[in-house]
Amino acid sequence: MRNITVGAAQLGPIQKAEGRQNVVARMITLLDEAASKGADLVVFPELALTTFFPRWYMTDSAEIDSWFEKEMPNAAVQPLFDAARKHGCAITFGFAEKTPDGHYFNTSIFVDKEGNIAGKYRKVHLPGHSEWDDNRAFQHLEKRYFEPGDLGFPVYRTLGGIFGMCICNDRRWPETFRVMGLQNVEMVTLGFNTPSVNSEKGGEGIEQRLFHHRLSLQAGAYQNATWVVAVAKAGSEDDHHLMGGTLIVDPNGHIVGELPGEDDGVLVHTCDLDETKFGKSTIFDFARHRRIEHYGLITERTGAEEPAE
Amino acid sequence: MRNITVGAAQLGPIQKAEGRQNVVARMITLLDEAASKGADLVVFPELALTTFFPRWYMTDSAEIDSWFEKEMPNAAVQPLFDAARKHGCAITFGFAEKTPDGHYFNTSIFVDKEGNIAGKYRKVHLPGHSEWDDNRAFQHLEKRYFEPGDLGFPVYRTLGGIFGMCICNDRRWPETFRVMGLQNVEMVTLGFNTPSVNSEKGGEGIEQRLFHHRLSLQAGAYQNATWVVAVAKAGSEDDHHLMGGTLIVDPNGHIVGELPGEDDGVLVHTCDLDETKFGKSTIFDFARHRRIEHYGLITERTGAEEPAE
Repeated sequence: MRNITVGAAQLGPIQKAEGRQNVVARMITLLDEAASKGADLVVFPELALTTFFPRWYMTDSAEIDSWFEKEMPNAAVQPLFDAARKHGCAITFGFAEKTPDGHYFNTSIFVDKEGNIAGKYRKVHLPGHSEWDDNRAFQHLEKRYFEPGDLGFPVYRTLGGIFGMCICNDRRWPETFRVMGLQNVEMVTLGFNTPSVNSEKGGEGIEQRLFHHRLSLQAGAYQNATWVVAVAKAGSEDDHHLMGGTLIVDPNGHIVGELPGEDDGVLVHTCDLDETKFGKSTIFDFARHRRIEHYGLITERTGAEEPAE
Repeated sequence: MRNITVGAAQLGPIQKAEGRQNVVARMITLLDEAASKGADLVVFPELALTTFFPRWYMTDSAEIDSWFEKEMPNAAVQPLFDAARKHGCAITFGFAEKTPDGHYFNTSIFVDKEGNIAGKYRKVHLPGHSEWDDNRAFQHLEKRYFEPGDLGFPVYRTLGGIFGMCICNDRRWPETFRVMGLQNVEMVTLGFNTPSVNSEKGGEGIEQRLFHHRLSLQAGAYQNATWVVAVAKAGSEDDHHLMGGTLIVDPNGHIVGELPGEDDGVLVHTCDLDETKFGKSTIFDFARHRRIEHYGLITERTGAEEPAE
């Protein structure tokens, strides 16, 4: 057994006017609760420090920059780093990153028990669009504010296991989990901000959205024999509603815990990383069963192309 | 709307001693029923003409060859072809194929309404093993009797849409669906013979097996915005039990119908191929969202490799 106790720390809504200091205080409250329950690792959502600002159309570069972190940790976030180190607890959370050379990413970091940044991931699969779109019920401008991640899907050794990250929409893409599975990942952590209604299809509401969410995570976990920890920012941010669905999936694809509601809260579960071994050594022993000579289109072709008439 | 009425024609068990003529008569009964309900296409299982013979360890090449078809159609199967053409109904089914030059495959063909073989697929992901294995509760010798398919995952235009096939264990591999998704597939048909117990883990029984089955099919359908039609050979073949779970999944990942029981039976459903369009043009518009520069390991690496210590 290689047990890791994980706290999936859901954040309720963050209003546009709420400052980072206040959000960090909320995160520390969740961290304290998880640590009191024995957590080795606490997972926070995507863009954990602010509202989900890509719903707002902006043109002013100073206004846009105000949503981004220029260094990490910075003064607002340092108390979270300090609290985690005090507890001897690793943490991972998402934020909008502006690099020193002026690039913009939707980023997650993994901070180990000693307070070192042991892993960094930049969101590869950016959903939405880059210009104002009248055909949508609301805007989803991730392609406007972020560049696609440039780090691939790295994994990192920490807490006695092999960990990887992705962010929100990445979970719908089997390539995300497979690239990490091919590096023997044992636990994938991710945060998400998922609107409760499809902006392009009003009839697709929260039940369908949660269904697709669970389906993607469960398939990714099963087909790569890995734990998956997925954490929501949920509830109504300035009248824009985000679904909940913070949950943990075991390497068989079963949901072992799901947090009800849309408020701040922590789901704590002890995960045995050795439970990944059976799948990885039998039906998903990739070395014995994969046939890469037939997968070429996956990396040769970005878009779908119909066969000849 | 581009409606296709599909009959998912499950076969109950085929005992080792049952001849092809008898099986073909059972298949024609199912075809007649589906055609009477308006089916344009009837889907039969993997290795539809015989028992699931890879559970039996054989060394005698004549005995092995007796399970394979040397031509298609042949005399035993011709009545099925004739009945389908009479009904103006396309069919697809699986069988063990021995080629004129002596290769052995686990194959499916798609026969169009005019009786022409419009598509052929050879199973890529062979599960199991090639030599007797004392550690298993029963044998699963697909790697002994078959070579991995050499045709990739082709799609073909028929019935006014774009169709593809896979077979049984292929459905657990997201690469299977993705390679067809990248060719804009609108309906994937497959048959399966899935033992009700994991031969390497007695505690994994029928409920878990059906869960993984549904999960893989639903994820493949949703993530590629395609219909999926999956058809079982089910029930107890010479005391070896195969699960049922014949079902149809829509391009949103929802199961729209599932056949109860483990006997011969047909599930008929009308599928609108245009329902694939919303997913293919929004969240799974591959051209806008995929990032092939980060998928390299999927085609570079067969087995998983751990990161450096």
